[in-house]
Amino acid sequence: VTHDIAVIPGDGIGKEVVPVSLDLLNVLADIHGGITFQFTEYPWGCDYHLAHGQMMPKNGMEQLKQHEQIFLGAVGDQNLVPDHISLWGLLIKIRRECEQVINLRPVKYLEGVSSPLANPNDFDFMVVRENSEGEYSEIGGTMHSGPDEVAVQNAIFTRKAVERTIRYACALAEERNQKVTSATKSNGIVYSMPFWDKILAEVGEDYPKVEKQSQHIDALSAFLVTKPSSFDVIVGSNLFGDILTDIGAAIMGSIGIAPAANINLDGKYPSMFEPVHGSAPDIAGKGIANPIGQLWSAKMMLDHIDYPELASLLFDAMANTIASGIKTPDLGGKHSTEEVVDEIHKRLLAN
Amino acid sequence: VTHDIAVIPGDGIGKEVVPVSLDLLNVLADIHGGITFQFTEYPWGCDYHLAHGQMMPKNGMEQLKQHEQIFLGAVGDQNLVPDHISLWGLLIKIRRECEQVINLRPVKYLEGVSSPLANPNDFDFMVVRENSEGEYSEIGGTMHSGPDEVAVQNAIFTRKAVERTIRYACALAEERNQKVTSATKSNGIVYSMPFWDKILAEVGEDYPKVEKQSQHIDALSAFLVTKPSSFDVIVGSNLFGDILTDIGAAIMGSIGIAPAANINLDGKYPSMFEPVHGSAPDIAGKGIANPIGQLWSAKMMLDHIDYPELASLLFDAMANTIASGIKTPDLGGKHSTEEVVDEIHKRLLAN
Ligand SMILES: CC(C)[C@H](C(=O)O)[C@@H](O)C(=O)O
Ligand SMILES: CC(C)[C@H](C(=O)O)[C@@H](O)C(=O)O
Repeated sequence: VTHDIAVIPGDGIGKEVVPVSLDLLNVLADIHGGITFQFTEYPWGCDYHLAHGQMMPKNGMEQLKQHEQIFLGAVGDQNLVPDHISLWGLLIKIRRECEQVINLRPVKYLEGVSSPLANPNDFDFMVVRENSEGEYSEIGGTMHSGPDEVAVQNAIFTRKAVERTIRYACALAEERNQKVTSATKSNGIVYSMPFWDKILAEVGEDYPKVEKQSQHIDALSAFLVTKPSSFDVIVGSNLFGDILTDIGAAIMGSIGIAPAANINLDGKYPSMFEPVHGSAPDIAGKGIANPIGQLWSAKMMLDHIDYPELASLLFDAMANTIASGIKTPDLGGKHSTEEVVDEIHKRLLAN
Repeated sequence: VTHDIAVIPGDGIGKEVVPVSLDLLNVLADIHGGITFQFTEYPWGCDYHLAHGQMMPKNGMEQLKQHEQIFLGAVGDQNLVPDHISLWGLLIKIRRECEQVINLRPVKYLEGVSSPLANPNDFDFMVVRENSEGEYSEIGGTMHSGPDEVAVQNAIFTRKAVERTIRYACALAEERNQKVTSATKSNGIVYSMPFWDKILAEVGEDYPKVEKQSQHIDALSAFLVTKPSSFDVIVGSNLFGDILTDIGAAIMGSIGIAPAANINLDGKYPSMFEPVHGSAPDIAGKGIANPIGQLWSAKMMLDHIDYPELASLLFDAMANTIASGIKTPDLGGKHSTEEVVDEIHKRLLAN
């Protein structure tokens, strides 16, 4: 079988951690035997924008949609192109146009990573983030100028999107530890959040074995710090999921290790796998970018295209490499991207 | 001088931590000499709603506005009255109608409190939260029913409110360590947040000595966990300020100790002082509620009405009590509300 993967390294450290991940994916294909990855690279990003005035060519989305999956590095470099242009012209554009309506992000304690928490206690939960609408809308604007200027931003929540997100979270909890925590703020945000709560109550009835609870986003953010091991599956809106997963990355010990899957549910368009971290222009080119977030995203892609054994192989090799002390500076280590990748490679071959 | 203070104990543990705080305020008045606090208690809250069908009487706001300041416990008990009714009928109503446009919340490491962070490193920063508009709006609604149902929630940002909030933060930083971090999300929320950023840039020009930086709310939430001691003053919208201050309370070691001041800037109406914690119905009536959040709010009131010496006396007595190991269960201690208050009282008299 050949798997046809679109690859967008993007900006900054994306260009460093993507190529090494492709190498290891090829190693895994060899280990498995009988499968090949065919990678088609698209050099889109802020440099592309500087040269062509847009983040991707006009027919870019058409090209991407031909592929089975998308493997993305990182997008955005404020020094080159304003964020709202680079992100809405590439990252958010792909999420929306490929109907990647769920953003799935694991938050898991890894041995050998020094968490900023005094007692990290082996937390292991998944965040299911609504990925298509909500607070991230292009509806709104500003009016008047001078002292009377006012900006309005509309958050849009459709039953369709909220329902499928909560349903996804409940189904995931059924396969895990039967617990869903829903992020809300119905005490302050009085239309969209009670709407979300209502749909949780309705959809929840189809998952009687799953324990459902709601937490206001302020309290929930705090609980991620004070009792992260109490969570199984967390479900939230686009913005709340964004915030919670960055706190998740923080308690994991580094934003450099957290992965994400942007999932197209109906298989009509490709899904996209990308780390939670950004392009980190400040450390780009130094050879010290942490490859783990990108590799863990590759692991999620392997799970998604149904190679769970390869996914586990990769995860264990990664986790054992870190546990053995071979890690990049963001994790308190002294190793380069290449040294970490070489060790993972060695461990894969040793299997 | 007599200071005329409206007191609303509210719900749950509010009824336990407010009275003991009034006692200590009286002790402080005696220590100072020549001042008296005149407390007028209003028994408004969820019990009042059960009896009267509203959170406060029709002329409640008129009554409150007669007073110099408002001292509030906690509002809301989902078991009795839905949160959006109890909070918009009392807490948020007072904030809005008394034009308490700034919500000021200190986040500070206290010795003797076990922070969930491995290296809390003596953080000490202030969060300036916009308190009158933003994401907490009553503009929006739902439309259609069944599969087509949609909810819209409008966030409203006026230049007036954003400007005074950022100005307040910059002025505060001038008196502290000359650094303002502004919470934004202009890469995802493309009207209101770039508007906020623009006003930061403009207002910032009036504070040349203050270093201004912006951080996206996701990254900033994470940094509160990974490097809290790098902040001086953080400024954010109503929702972002809400989230950041709960994370702040979490890293302080307990939501039970964090205080807040809701500030009326022009002195036309009273300001209001209340802890960040809620009414905690689960521990109400057990005598173990942490009084520190309420007392620290009293300390902020003393600062506000310009008794900085009394404010310091109270703060030191509180901090030394905790450092000596006399603390409630939420802080890992074994003491009751009363024992903590008695120790603080003793320390105040020893001065
Ligand atoms: C109870 C709720 C409406 C309130 C808020 O979000 O403002 C609370 O969380 C706070 O921070 O004071
Ligand atoms: C870059 C930004 C628009 C993006 C988001 O908020 O979705 C990022 O923070 C993420 O979490 O993938």
